[in-house]
Amino acid sequence: MTLSSLQRALAQFAAERDWEQFHTPKNLAMALAGDRGELLEIFQWLTPEQSTQVMQDDERAVQVREEMADVLAYLLRLSDVLDVDLEQALAEKIEKNRRVYPVHLARGKADKYTQLGG
Amino acid sequence: MTLSSLQRALAQFAAERDWEQFHTPKNLAMALAGDRGELLEIFQWLTPEQSTQVMQDDERAVQVREEMADVLAYLLRLSDVLDVDLEQALAEKIEKNRRVYPVHLARGKADKYTQLGG
Amino acid sequence: MTLSSLQRALAQFAAERDWEQFHTPKNLAMALAGDRGELLEIFQWLTPEQSTQVMQDDERAVQVREEMADVLAYLLRLSDVLDVDLEQALAEKIEKNRRVYPVHLARGKADKYTQLGG
Amino acid sequence: MTLSSLQRALAQFAAERDWEQFHTPKNLAMALAGDRGELLEIFQWLTPEQSTQVMQDDERAVQVREEMADVLAYLLRLSDVLDVDLEQALAEKIEKNRRVYPVHLARGKADKYTQLGG
Repeated sequence: MTLSSLQRALAQFAAERDWEQFHTPKNLAMALAGDRGELLEIFQWLTPEQSTQVMQDDERAVQVREEMADVLAYLLRLSDVLDVDLEQALAEKIEKNRRVYPVHLARGKADKYTQLGG
Repeated sequence: MTLSSLQRALAQFAAERDWEQFHTPKNLAMALAGDRGELLEIFQWLTPEQSTQVMQDDERAVQVREEMADVLAYLLRLSDVLDVDLEQALAEKIEKNRRVYPVHLARGKADKYTQLGG
Repeated sequence: MTLSSLQRALAQFAAERDWEQFHTPKNLAMALAGDRGELLEIFQWLTPEQSTQVMQDDERAVQVREEMADVLAYLLRLSDVLDVDLEQALAEKIEKNRRVYPVHLARGKADKYTQLGG
Repeated sequence: MTLSSLQRALAQFAAERDWEQFHTPKNLAMALAGDRGELLEIFQWLTPEQSTQVMQDDERAVQVREEMADVLAYLLRLSDVLDVDLEQALAEKIEKNRRVYPVHLARGKADKYTQLGG
């Protein structure tokens, strides 16, 4: 399915349940943030190396997939109620990041661009 | 652009900058959470009504779009390094939610399904 | 109990269980953030008015108290491993905020000080 | 200063600026979460080892202290408007955790107690 067909499915899901009243941008931003408790909890005590193996535990893998699906769901609902074209917004952000993180300065460094000198 | 082409663009962006070393699932889960924190700040003092008008302020609108793009970017990177098919995961989650939030019980209620009786 | 005696109790709790190895600043920052999923979930669909009544539901009240205790616990552990004097840091922050949010400019406004003109 | 004197200072700070109208539990829970997002950003790309050195960079150290002060500030405001005794809540939580994480089972393990067998 495409993002926009998923977005429509989510909008319909909310409309059928009369949930649009709850889906203000403020509430959706909270849900988007609140829903990831378990995602962070899954990773919080793991070493970076262990974190790369997380999908090899079946129970964890299901949890991770569901949490990520929830994040996408709330992000799509938020973009719907705010009328933001997410794919377009991301394409523009990538272009911007090409400028602010030029390869020759950013290579191998995790610094924010404000610290990159230039 | 499709999700998978955005995903490839992000993977290439990271590879060109030798940033894959930073993009462990653990770190990406943190980045995903951090950026959602910034979205919360935009909405935290607004009333639900004010939150629906947030895109009418040009400066805020740019910020909201960029934060949402960042959330999508980190979500796509995380799904890439964990080999999760996000669109498929969301389609399955919607199916699951149809079962646990049936219209006749969930209509107009914001309760978690564990509280819905049934 | 004072903050510092709670901090010592938490340090001892971790030491007895050989958990200090997990309590890096990075991991504690994640735990601090990750643990509040439920706190946000409790409030996300409530109106501001409903949110003021949340402690009248006994089950919710227990949840809220426990989540807040967890936040304080991880904050105290983080301040311990980073050797930050929390009470001092907050006292200084209040002083700073007195300067950047002077009463005559900030009164009744929720704007960040960068927007306050002056 | 004690927690309760800091709590009073924060309450007075809000009252002087007529900010109590913004300080609903819902909004304060968002603010608490948003600021923890900023803490995550400081640590997200650091290795666990680098994260232990974060206070040796003066600029970062100031940031970390301020973010932690903000978390404590919002936590104190939230506990004030909800009438939660934070120190008492934490003391009780530590007692509860002594039961659910007994030393002989929890030693050296980061598992949630539901996975600890027993």
